[in-house]
Amino acid sequence: MTVLDKFFQGDQAALARIISFVEDNEDGYREVLGKLYPKSGRAARIGFTGPPGAGKSSLVNNVSKALASNGKTVAVIAVDPSSPFTGGALLGDRIRLTDMPTDGSIFIRSMATRGSSGGLAAATGNVTTVLDAFGFDYILIETVGVGQIELDIVDACDTVVVVLVPESGDSIQTLKAGLMEIADIFTVNKADRPGAENIVMELNMTLDLKRDQMAWDIPVISTEAVNNIGIDKLLEKISLHMDYAVKSGWLEKHRRKQIRKKIYNILTFYVNGMIREKLAEMPDLERVVSDIYEGRGDPYSASRDLVKLSGMTFNNF
Amino acid sequence: MTVLDKFFQGDQAALARIISFVEDNEDGYREVLGKLYPKSGRAARIGFTGPPGAGKSSLVNNVSKALASNGKTVAVIAVDPSSPFTGGALLGDRIRLTDMPTDGSIFIRSMATRGSSGGLAAATGNVTTVLDAFGFDYILIETVGVGQIELDIVDACDTVVVVLVPESGDSIQTLKAGLMEIADIFTVNKADRPGAENIVMELNMTLDLKRDQMAWDIPVISTEAVNNIGIDKLLEKISLHMDYAVKSGWLEKHRRKQIRKKIYNILTFYVNGMIREKLAEMPDLERVVSDIYEGRGDPYSASRDLVKLSGMTFNNF
Repeated sequence: MTVLDKFFQGDQAALARIISFVEDNEDGYREVLGKLYPKSGRAARIGFTGPPGAGKSSLVNNVSKALASNGKTVAVIAVDPSSPFTGGALLGDRIRLTDMPTDGSIFIRSMATRGSSGGLAAATGNVTTVLDAFGFDYILIETVGVGQIELDIVDACDTVVVVLVPESGDSIQTLKAGLMEIADIFTVNKADRPGAENIVMELNMTLDLKRDQMAWDIPVISTEAVNNIGIDKLLEKISLHMDYAVKSGWLEKHRRKQIRKKIYNILTFYVNGMIREKLAEMPDLERVVSDIYEGRGDPYSASRDLVKLSGMTFNNF
Repeated sequence: MTVLDKFFQGDQAALARIISFVEDNEDGYREVLGKLYPKSGRAARIGFTGPPGAGKSSLVNNVSKALASNGKTVAVIAVDPSSPFTGGALLGDRIRLTDMPTDGSIFIRSMATRGSSGGLAAATGNVTTVLDAFGFDYILIETVGVGQIELDIVDACDTVVVVLVPESGDSIQTLKAGLMEIADIFTVNKADRPGAENIVMELNMTLDLKRDQMAWDIPVISTEAVNNIGIDKLLEKISLHMDYAVKSGWLEKHRRKQIRKKIYNILTFYVNGMIREKLAEMPDLERVVSDIYEGRGDPYSASRDLVKLSGMTFNNF
């Protein structure tokens, strides 16, 4: 029996092997993803993002436990872009988990890489496809929300929960624009701290200005993840958002957009790899580089010449 | 007289116009960069990175004032990747500056974008080329050090100053690996706070393990940027690093590597643009997307078919 057969029978060891295979871009990983893809698309994909220290890990843990106790299967992807300044923090949190069910209803995978930024978002997308094809009901994707990579990752989710803390209130004015674009649900976590009510009110006031233009009425709730308070409310809002997304047709539009994006990403990933390879093989490259280094040329003209040499035709170049 | 003529005569208004022209990728910006490029390469490019709140802006301000008072011209690029969670903070700091010389010896430019991650690093590189061609002696590039984009940006500098604070000591074990790779100089800023000596010692102990393998002996200093303490020491270390870089041949190797990287980036930027355009024009794309959405295909096979249709040949696909 092949690993794929075992995978389709629900074997978690086979799942882990296929995830590693896909993450490492091993030979033939695209064929495997090609086979899994048509089985995917059934899981609800929920993204959790917010500033470091907002308590996203605790929230995701308690949400996954609540879903599991309702009979759902849950996969958690913890994404850590591993900047040298944040590296390890998220994964450190994960290691501390001790009270998760061991019946296979919750599967946790951490992802971190120093690779290119596009690489991490793509790898997260591929692992999501694998988990979705495996049959999980929910895929929860948690990112430390501090950059473009994380935004690319949550943009691929169906529902995005933005997690803030009372202290975020100080900078809410500068945060607003970007957050409103990505949030489907706001939760003010660590709501037992001073200022929680203020930031809930302030978010609501900002949202009130646009509620008549919003197809989905973005809710603002408060939670205390470590005390397991507010989790049911959050699950209810997630469920309402999924209903809205399906019934309004938004989900279909969103998923189609993701497919277009995926085709573009697959194409550029390979074409860029080919360019890298062609450049490495090019006997003339070092002469061109020397000319530029010595002030007898520039990389813009050189690139145009290289395209001509290659015989490829590009509009707009 | 054209804007370019004025630019080459040292007109700062022309400089600002050309920077905007290049930043906005206006028609013909590559031709302009092609003309400027051979005039660039003389400026010393110093990157400053470190965690949010490390005092990088104050440090860069005082370094640039010290350089200006030594008769040097300085351009400062403040890069803010504008995550919704950090957006605006850096630029906010910049606006508060009031004590900078107004004789044109210091030129400050903030860069921020929500665009793709590759876009910001590329735009920063292009603006650096413009400033270098204009004739600035030093280009100081400051980034909030929290992600891959910032690493790509500082990687293009000749000398990288990593700015830490005493509080960074808590997480130094997890930070170490990545920091050692990018730092040419460490400074522990806000050194009047408790723990400063400890983190200096800890960094030195870590470096001691590898000093016999290091061609450049990475120094660890301490500064108090807001009190203007330690700036001379930092300038001395920067100057020593530049001497080392020139004399050892490292700088030439590094600059050649940057040229190769730039050619690759220019090629992929345009090829990816072309792919985007071709996809948008393709009458069949929506049918392909529908097939995938309805479970009758997958984006991996579809991408392979699209490459075949396009007539392009790729090894490895």
